[in-house]
Amino acid sequence: MKTVQDYIRTIPDFPHEGIMFRDVTTLFNDPRGFRIAVDQLLHPYAGMQIDQVAGLEARGFIMGGAIAHQLSVGFLPIRKKGKLPGKTIEQAYQLEYGEAVVEVHDDALQPGDKVLLVDDLLATGGTAEAGIKLIERLGAEVIGCAFIIDLPELGGRKRLEAMGMDVHALCAFEGA
Amino acid sequence: MKTVQDYIRTIPDFPHEGIMFRDVTTLFNDPRGFRIAVDQLLHPYAGMQIDQVAGLEARGFIMGGAIAHQLSVGFLPIRKKGKLPGKTIEQAYQLEYGEAVVEVHDDALQPGDKVLLVDDLLATGGTAEAGIKLIERLGAEVIGCAFIIDLPELGGRKRLEAMGMDVHALCAFEGA
Repeated sequence: MKTVQDYIRTIPDFPHEGIMFRDVTTLFNDPRGFRIAVDQLLHPYAGMQIDQVAGLEARGFIMGGAIAHQLSVGFLPIRKKGKLPGKTIEQAYQLEYGEAVVEVHDDALQPGDKVLLVDDLLATGGTAEAGIKLIERLGAEVIGCAFIIDLPELGGRKRLEAMGMDVHALCAFEGA
Repeated sequence: MKTVQDYIRTIPDFPHEGIMFRDVTTLFNDPRGFRIAVDQLLHPYAGMQIDQVAGLEARGFIMGGAIAHQLSVGFLPIRKKGKLPGKTIEQAYQLEYGEAVVEVHDDALQPGDKVLLVDDLLATGGTAEAGIKLIERLGAEVIGCAFIIDLPELGGRKRLEAMGMDVHALCAFEGA
């Protein structure tokens, strides 16, 4: 049977030359691939208390919605700046060139909430770190960070583990 | 018990003055609210053949992922231009000022696939219409369009029904 990694397509030179883009749409698009990925993302957390699933915009919304529904818990979208209509708190993070900002509603979590953070890809970990900071600033606790793909050479896992995070990824690809 | 509509927060003057923004994040954020919304979105389609769930970026990814997972089918992201790494087909649609483009990978569906389209909000129906056209251009069939919120005064339902679509919404708000 195909593994999660087998369903992921690699497209060279996207979004620019030299990048090997790991395309999860072929995984999401396959009935068995999507089912396996979501189920396996959850396996380490069986039996743990999870109050909210947080997903990073935009691909993190896809598995995040699925996982929140499976657990019958709430879903927290961590969005790019300017998309949320209510009062927000924001967190900047570095990009290759310049910086970006993510935000959440300031009433989206209760102090003590246990949150599972999900995204499709762990690269440098910059977006995930910003998401974790937002969750912690609301007084909640990140009990795990789950990704479909880890790119170990970009250092994201080490960065999150240095913050005390528990990191779970379904597969790893060498190279950026 | 609170209904889906009860969980939706209204924020005046977002993104600009005069707009009553219907904020689904308070629905998604609530364990029971999110569970009820996803389950009720699916009720009309019980027993029907669905091969893929298509979600419109970005909030449509949240329920779309949940529904695809519940059905154990694939998920097709309909994305804003420039996000998909593979070969795509694109479809333009009118905005209040100017136009926007959505796209899908050209190999994302098989001819004859039966697709359920989901998004959080049906307003003018412009984005949904563009999504339907993309699905149909790949030879697949839209068997239903499911939304959390309908804004009937903006005419989206009539527009999609005039295309022969079956439209399902969990609640309606008066006014734009």
